[in-house]
Amino acid sequence: MLLRIAATLLLAAPAFAQTPVTEAARAYREAHEVAILAETMDFLRLPNNAANREDILANARHIVGLMEARGIEARILEAGDASPAVYGELDVPGATRTLMLYTHYDGQPVEPENWTSDPYEPIVRAGRLEDGAEIVEDPLSGEIDPDWRIYARSSSDDKSPLVAILHAIDALRAAGIGPNVNIRFFLEGEEEAGSPHLRALLETHRDLLQSDLWLIADGPIDTRGDPRVLVGVRGVTSMQLTVHGAERVLHSGHYGNVAPNPAARLAHLISSMRDATGRVLIDGFYDDVLPISDAARRYLDAGAFDEDSLLSEPGIARTEWGPGGLYGEAVMVPALNVLGLDAGAVGAGTRNAIPDRATAAIGFRVVPNMSLDRLRDNVRAHIEGEGYLVLDREPTHEERLQHPMIAELHWSSAGYEAASTEAGHPLIGHLVDLVDAASERPVRVVPLLGGSLPLAPISEVTQTPFAIVPIVNPDNSQHAPNENLRIGNLWDGIELYAAILADDWASD
Amino acid sequence: MLLRIAATLLLAAPAFAQTPVTEAARAYREAHEVAILAETMDFLRLPNNAANREDILANARHIVGLMEARGIEARILEAGDASPAVYGELDVPGATRTLMLYTHYDGQPVEPENWTSDPYEPIVRAGRLEDGAEIVEDPLSGEIDPDWRIYARSSSDDKSPLVAILHAIDALRAAGIGPNVNIRFFLEGEEEAGSPHLRALLETHRDLLQSDLWLIADGPIDTRGDPRVLVGVRGVTSMQLTVHGAERVLHSGHYGNVAPNPAARLAHLISSMRDATGRVLIDGFYDDVLPISDAARRYLDAGAFDEDSLLSEPGIARTEWGPGGLYGEAVMVPALNVLGLDAGAVGAGTRNAIPDRATAAIGFRVVPNMSLDRLRDNVRAHIEGEGYLVLDREPTHEERLQHPMIAELHWSSAGYEAASTEAGHPLIGHLVDLVDAASERPVRVVPLLGGSLPLAPISEVTQTPFAIVPIVNPDNSQHAPNENLRIGNLWDGIELYAAILADDWASD
Repeated sequence: MLLRIAATLLLAAPAFAQTPVTEAARAYREAHEVAILAETMDFLRLPNNAANREDILANARHIVGLMEARGIEARILEAGDASPAVYGELDVPGATRTLMLYTHYDGQPVEPENWTSDPYEPIVRAGRLEDGAEIVEDPLSGEIDPDWRIYARSSSDDKSPLVAILHAIDALRAAGIGPNVNIRFFLEGEEEAGSPHLRALLETHRDLLQSDLWLIADGPIDTRGDPRVLVGVRGVTSMQLTVHGAERVLHSGHYGNVAPNPAARLAHLISSMRDATGRVLIDGFYDDVLPISDAARRYLDAGAFDEDSLLSEPGIARTEWGPGGLYGEAVMVPALNVLGLDAGAVGAGTRNAIPDRATAAIGFRVVPNMSLDRLRDNVRAHIEGEGYLVLDREPTHEERLQHPMIAELHWSSAGYEAASTEAGHPLIGHLVDLVDAASERPVRVVPLLGGSLPLAPISEVTQTPFAIVPIVNPDNSQHAPNENLRIGNLWDGIELYAAILADDWASD
Repeated sequence: MLLRIAATLLLAAPAFAQTPVTEAARAYREAHEVAILAETMDFLRLPNNAANREDILANARHIVGLMEARGIEARILEAGDASPAVYGELDVPGATRTLMLYTHYDGQPVEPENWTSDPYEPIVRAGRLEDGAEIVEDPLSGEIDPDWRIYARSSSDDKSPLVAILHAIDALRAAGIGPNVNIRFFLEGEEEAGSPHLRALLETHRDLLQSDLWLIADGPIDTRGDPRVLVGVRGVTSMQLTVHGAERVLHSGHYGNVAPNPAARLAHLISSMRDATGRVLIDGFYDDVLPISDAARRYLDAGAFDEDSLLSEPGIARTEWGPGGLYGEAVMVPALNVLGLDAGAVGAGTRNAIPDRATAAIGFRVVPNMSLDRLRDNVRAHIEGEGYLVLDREPTHEERLQHPMIAELHWSSAGYEAASTEAGHPLIGHLVDLVDAASERPVRVVPLLGGSLPLAPISEVTQTPFAIVPIVNPDNSQHAPNENLRIGNLWDGIELYAAILADDWASD
């Protein structure tokens, strides 16, 4: 079903279409566009920075209202001082399967001075701001162009997917054709703050959170405009690694060849950890990495990623891994990323001085079945194996005189593990078929996203498969100023979720 | 004569003493301390930032006045738009040898807000500012403590050595015992600006500048308080080396293992250029380096440097070179110093992003007989040999897509070559004997200073041996705020230069 259609055809064709279910959803949407847009804009008017608990609570209560208006049993879930999650329950008589729908309703903090309009006062433009599109003064007065965009914080990340789901349910009911699967909602209120209490919330409310599949409605569709299903994400952690030199900055003439050069040593240490193609040289680093499964391989080969433009657009001659390997393969292996280097000064500020220290910020992207604890142990053992005394503080004068090589290591507290569902899982196959049937464009299945989402707690606590089914435009500027949603993506999302919720999921 | 006397004895003994010449110089100084101090302070009241030509000219005219008052023929030497040098000539009937005395009268720029007193209004303190020494309200009213310090820009670097030389001449004349060698002065007015016109001045006035030996009166004595003679300096140059990655900063999850990591590549490049002990791996780097001569070796073995405290004071366990080699040997080989690293961000600013570039500032300290041109060629060839396209500008989008590895290289325009006189030169041996005889403390002979001074033009244009004979205290804070001179060092300097100028230098 992973048919790839010529690009020229694709561009001419409507994005989604053509099962009875999606046709019904489209008809419903066409009849209710103004109301759907109005509801979306009302939702976006609620500030939702996770740091402001009152704002988060206001959003949670608003969502409870949206659900109760639809007869969905809704409640606010608390766990300690966590920002609350919103839970919702909709049982369908006779349904044997249950889908857990996940979105988050908090948003990244905003710097209003960098926006062209108030991030919490949604406006509609007749296209992309970058293309000079003007503001549509009264977008609720008549026909709505699907290429219009709503500019507001969380318009794409991640309020609109919930709007799409709720209107998919409305559409199915209006047509009398669904939903045909039990639905649960778990809507998080602090995802953008790093989900600090997600595990606690899941554990506290474990009994409520039973389902057959978690569907994560977050993130963008494929850059080619194709729908996609993602079944894994890399995990992430990072460390600050400082190599110490002399106790103070020293004259590069009087001390060149005499004082240890911490910048050169850091370069050696980095080179000892990672070869020129990104292959990590730390003992044990790859021990727990599983081979790419046959199912994952098939999805990669079918064009999981837009290989060419992912490289050429940002001016990359070839992938580091390999070198010249597939993008999709490169992100299925763990990565050591040097995120920053700092020592002395460069450019106009350069001094003829040997720095007293050199620091690298090093990030790791880990893949399923790896353990961050083991990774941290391996990294420390590697640095010690290179001859360093490893401290978690400045060395003393005495330590400096005793130990020719001293490093200081601090791990970030913000890391989390990778998570994935095996690409060959039957429910994943069923989901991919549904998405594929709902669209004229080929579905792109991503076995493992290079980026990270904190899905490991969901996977570990609930022991339930998950898949990410995004709807928003890739150029939505999520996390940045002037975040936006292409309205056509919301329309398509309603059809896509209608297709998923109209199925009874019982055929497997 | 390189006798080393036990430190306890040294501390009890007067610093200089005890030839008839030095006794005569001391007696003269003791009788004229207030006048000498007053003359020094008057000289220091003249601002001397080389960027202000009028100030430099005022200093030059003041110096001409000081010389003419002593019957020294003096004139201002110009060459194009160079800050002028001051030239002086004092012939001695019957003398067969000529010494060229070099100091510079310009000073480093000042940041007055970082000084505790006006840098151009000298004050005297009853000791070190760091030890809380109070200002001496009327230092010219009576007895002067040699541990008092004058605080002013150029008090040590480099006005007081000229004062010492002029009063050494006064002292010899007063005692009727000299000078016994022809004296020439070449006093530079833009040394702290990097001596941009030194070569032009020397070439323009080549006929005037004939001598048997250049004596450079600049820099501090040994940290152990011993007099020293230095016969070589390393040269210096530096480069900015940038490794380019993708055209923009990329997400470390979506692009980790995909986008080239310029920081990791820079680490590899640095590691390919320099091993962990400072040994440079660039082809040809050491080709022109001469072996350490027997004379130089003897001076090193006799304690040219205060090996222990040079390492232990700034917390260094062992020299990088070797590792664990002698300080004196380590600075006799050329060095590759990583002066700075910059890529992305570290610490609190760390982002999960792959930087688009990584830059290292890399300095080289070169030794006599090396060529900076050849060095630059070798470095470029090395980087190309590592697979890089080397540019002197940003790459274009097309170049990025064609060349997986691109570096950008910029050399500093401020470099200069090393310079030295062979430690076994007969005039050097004679000078060392004179300095040694003039002091109860052992003279320390430094075959090659790790730091750099722009002496190569002197050596190359005049084809005359040179030696540096410093007098000022090592803790003088040269180039920094609160530069100071210990007055006892000025007193000792008068005796030392008297000993040098009383000799007829004809015995060799």
